[in-house]
Order: sequence, then structure tokens, then C-alpha cells
Amino acid sequence: MRLAELSERSGVTTATIKYYLREGLLTPGHRVSATTADYDETHLRRLRLVRTLIQVGGVSVATAREVLRHVDDDSLGRTVRMGAALWALPHVPEADGSDEDVATARREVDRLLETLGWSTARDLATLSPDHRSLVAAVASLIRLGYRWDAEMMAPYARLMRQVAVHDLDFVEGYPSESEKVEAAVAAAILFEPVLRSLHRLAQEEESARRYGLS
Amino acid sequence: MRLAELSERSGVTTATIKYYLREGLLTPGHRVSATTADYDETHLRRLRLVRTLIQVGGVSVATAREVLRHVDDDSLGRTVRMGAALWALPHVPEADGSDEDVATARREVDRLLETLGWSTARDLATLSPDHRSLVAAVASLIRLGYRWDAEMMAPYARLMRQVAVHDLDFVEGYPSESEKVEAAVAAAILFEPVLRSLHRLAQEEESARRYGLS
Repeated sequence: MRLAELSERSGVTTATIKYYLREGLLTPGHRVSATTADYDETHLRRLRLVRTLIQVGGVSVATAREVLRHVDDDSLGRTVRMGAALWALPHVPEADGSDEDVATARREVDRLLETLGWSTARDLATLSPDHRSLVAAVASLIRLGYRWDAEMMAPYARLMRQVAVHDLDFVEGYPSESEKVEAAVAAAILFEPVLRSLHRLAQEEESARRYGLS
Repeated sequence: MRLAELSERSGVTTATIKYYLREGLLTPGHRVSATTADYDETHLRRLRLVRTLIQVGGVSVATAREVLRHVDDDSLGRTVRMGAALWALPHVPEADGSDEDVATARREVDRLLETLGWSTARDLATLSPDHRSLVAAVASLIRLGYRWDAEMMAPYARLMRQVAVHDLDFVEGYPSESEKVEAAVAAAILFEPVLRSLHRLAQEEESARRYGLS
């Protein structure tokens, strides 16, 4: 397909597509003349992913490039390839509280992972930005005076594990290895707002069930 | 306690406390002399909530005032009071896609609520910003070419309902009605980053279990 069709099918303007090409977020089309290039389904797919990252996820061009570099690195196994791509996404900032609150939070997170038997999360604790984000979020709760410990977190963590099972089933529905990794990245960005809204609706529903609507 | 102690116990500077007092986010202390006022535990509690809203939640002063107005409105039943406070929090923007994608998304969300028997969410559909956020998030997935329908969402929604059960158990642990509503607002802001991090860690764990770490 030509640039105009790629634009129409992806919903991205030709000016933005040209910008993505210049920034190396999209590989060039197959040149058919001095001024015309031909694009295929892989370009369309990549354009959707770039749009998800930048327009929906609010990710910078530099970060998007870093994420795509991992997505395209087929020297890696699936877990590491997905992990590297997801770890490159923006995370909650580091914990900024007193050393004491952060130390308490880290201890509770460690106890949680121990209780759950999540050995990968424990092994990767010092590397994973998700582990750091969790410690920061828990430290913030503790600092504000909320009792929040491994026992409080365990049921939430078990439910999130079940959510992750559905996520990976979704990802496995895609045929090729690179499409699977792309789907994992897209899901990480696009499922969060769905989950957040479902969570809020579920709270309203549960509140109405318990206390009525008056 | 005096202003200095309130500042120390809350971790909020005296300048910021004075700003919150001027903006009406905190009720004045009990005046003991022309220049000195006395604060109690309710001030400390309110200050924590204001800090959660503004510093952690990134909410504007005007929005915080609106949220607190609902928190303090004891003419309302618990569901409506919590709902009003939570609805005043910032939400995902309205769906901005083509009418067709949004219409498809709305139809799938309606089918989902029907399947789940969430009658409150259905009754409040035209009022709830959470319903609008969900439609916007689903429309965004559809626009990007992902198959995303009521059947895909149902298992996620059921898990989020279980999360909501734990949230409300946490909220019910607080003694007074106003503390319960405050806890619901704080939880809405503070639990989200915890859930997001647990979700990502769970994905890593599940991926390692399925595909190994190589």
C-alpha cells in the first residue's frame, strides 16, 4: 500500500508517519520509485504499536525507540524480551520518603513475595522497576499513616496473578513471537485504563450491594 | 497541638499548612490567643487526606475542595457519599474516536454489565464518569485494531469485583462514617499504584512460570 492508504488504515496523518520514519520508529517502505514507497501489513502493525505507545501511553519518542528495540530483539527468550520491553516503559518514581518508611515497605514487599512464593520477582528484586514502584507505593501508604503490610497485600497480589494469567492467554493468542511481544507491550498500556475503570465500577456495585443506594 | 507539632506529625511544612487553611481545605484550629491556635487529631487526619489528594494524586486545589465537600456531606447515604467523592476525582478523558468505535465500545460495555448483572452500574451509566472512562478505554483498544468485547472483559471485571470486596473490607475497618468515606477516597488514590505494580510483577512471574527465564 502507498503512504496515503497506510495513513487512512492506521488513522495516523501522513505528516506524523513521516515524522515516525525520520525518528526511526518505523522502518522505511519498499522504494518503488524516487518519490514513492510501498508499505505492508507489518508497517501497519508497527504504526499501531507506536501510536499506542506515544498517543495513548504518553511515552516519549526516545522511550518508544528503546521499547521497540527490545520488541525487535529476537536473540532473547520470551520472558526476558517481554520483560525488557515492559521495563523500558515509564514507572512510578522512586520512593522519596524517609529511609525508615522505605525500609519498612521493602521488608513488607519481601515478606509478600516470600509468602506468595514468587521466586522470579524475588530474584529480580534489585533489577526490576516494578519492584521499586511497588516499594515506593507502599512507602507512600505507610508515610500517610495507613497500616499496610504483607498480609493486606496478599489477596490483592493473588487476584493480580489471576489477571496476569488472562493477559498472557491474550498474548498467546497471537501467532508469531514478535506479535506476542508487541501484544504484551500494547496490553500493558491499554489494559491499565480498562482495569482502573472496571475497578471503580466494581466498587460502586459492591457498595450499592452492601449499603443500598440511598 | 500547635502548628509546629501538626507540621511535624503530618510531614507537611507549616507554610503549606497555612496555604491549605487559606484555601479552605483545612478547618481553622481552636484559637487560644491572638496568634496561636490549637489543632487536634481531626486536623491531622484531614491533612493526611489533603496531602494524599494533592501530593500523591496530583489533584488541583479546586478538585480537592470539591472531593472534601462530598466527604463532609453527612446528609448522604454511604454509597452516594463515597460515589460523589470518587466521581469528583480526575478521570480518563472522554472518548475522542470516531462515533462508530465509541458506539461499538458502549454496546460491549452494556453487554458486559448485563452479563455480570451489575445493575447499579447500568442504572448509573449515563451519570458515572467511570462508565464513560471504561467506554473511552475500550474504544481506544478497538480503534487500534484489538478484538475487545464483553467476553474478553468479563473475567477481568469479575476479578476487579473481588478486588473491590477487599477495598470495602478495608474501608469498613474504620470506626466512624466520615473516616470510612475518607478511607475510600485515600484508597482510590493510593491503591492504584500498588495494584499496577503488583499486576506487572504478576505478569513477570507468570511469564517466567510459562516460558522460563532464558
